[in-house]
Amino acid sequence: MSRGIFITFEGNDGSGKTTQILLLSEYLKQKGLEVVTLREPGGTTIGEKIREILLDNRNRGMSPVAEMLLYAASRAQLVSEVIKPELEKNRAVICDRFVDSSLAYQGVGRGLGVNNVWVVNRQAVDDCLPDITFFMDLDADASMARRIAKGEEADRIESEKMDFHRRVYSGYLELSRRYPDRIKRIDVNRSPQEVFAEIRGYVDEFLEKAER
Amino acid sequence: MSRGIFITFEGNDGSGKTTQILLLSEYLKQKGLEVVTLREPGGTTIGEKIREILLDNRNRGMSPVAEMLLYAASRAQLVSEVIKPELEKNRAVICDRFVDSSLAYQGVGRGLGVNNVWVVNRQAVDDCLPDITFFMDLDADASMARRIAKGEEADRIESEKMDFHRRVYSGYLELSRRYPDRIKRIDVNRSPQEVFAEIRGYVDEFLEKAER
Repeated sequence: MSRGIFITFEGNDGSGKTTQILLLSEYLKQKGLEVVTLREPGGTTIGEKIREILLDNRNRGMSPVAEMLLYAASRAQLVSEVIKPELEKNRAVICDRFVDSSLAYQGVGRGLGVNNVWVVNRQAVDDCLPDITFFMDLDADASMARRIAKGEEADRIESEKMDFHRRVYSGYLELSRRYPDRIKRIDVNRSPQEVFAEIRGYVDEFLEKAER
Repeated sequence: MSRGIFITFEGNDGSGKTTQILLLSEYLKQKGLEVVTLREPGGTTIGEKIREILLDNRNRGMSPVAEMLLYAASRAQLVSEVIKPELEKNRAVICDRFVDSSLAYQGVGRGLGVNNVWVVNRQAVDDCLPDITFFMDLDADASMARRIAKGEEADRIESEKMDFHRRVYSGYLELSRRYPDRIKRIDVNRSPQEVFAEIRGYVDEFLEKAER
């Protein structure tokens, strides 16, 4: 491979992204790859400061466009400071949320429009699109039920009304239909091991093609 | 008038923006207008937090795209939270720097391209372009000389190399040629009173047209 592999996980909260990222990270390490796991927003000093602004419950008056631009700014910094350099060193980069989160949450959830969000993020991503994106398919109502069951406190985005989270989910569905080669829709209503078996299959397939 | 007047001041540091904003603000108040003066980046709680990130000398590793997006995020918040509501109340809004700063500093100075910066800022500005923009024409070398004479400490942007500030200046020149109706180029190598006489002339002309 002349470049590492870039994998992102997307989906509503509670869809099992964290568990699957852990399993995939271990799996790729066993295959001898060096693995970098990241989260959005954040992942850099500048990005973590942006994250604080974005998730702070006191910032409820944030305009949807300002929110979209702050996510994109954090992403631009992460791409230039971490993702590109790590991929150039042939590492596997796994990111918890990336550009599709902006397309779903701000483009569809906030109603800014997927294309408006894309013309901004095209510059943030700078040709560094994921090789594979796993859309962990858990609908908004099930997501909320899982969060409540865990008893976690909600940040500014999580505190949004159910209608917002339902629009986000519909946005993800639409994106996975629009980019079927890149975005793999994963049924999460199975055991973590069954879910991971499917994810591993897609990753193995990609690595085999890349080696040829 | 069905809407207030929106005036912005642009130009390299040390070009006398602060003095002229003060003079114009007093003049408009004497004419019976309610005046709101703002500065960029900042002007809102969220914007001031973004300003801290942007001007902090420790953030020297900031990517040019992240920088451009942070300025745009601060602007989007300022437009939606302050500028639009104030203009709807028929107030005069005077802003120290606005969208042309991004076009000149990030578009030309950083080399991102004016059009790339515009497709982002078009969404931040949301049809709220200034009625008049005064480009305070002081070239980069004179600007630096004035700053050094004042003995002020430089922030992250001010600390950039002279080549950067020269490109910014050339960007402003180009913008004032491209949008001559909106951007008035003001020779600042005169007394503040002479400079203000010209500025006042443009503002009076605009107000007279608006009253008709």
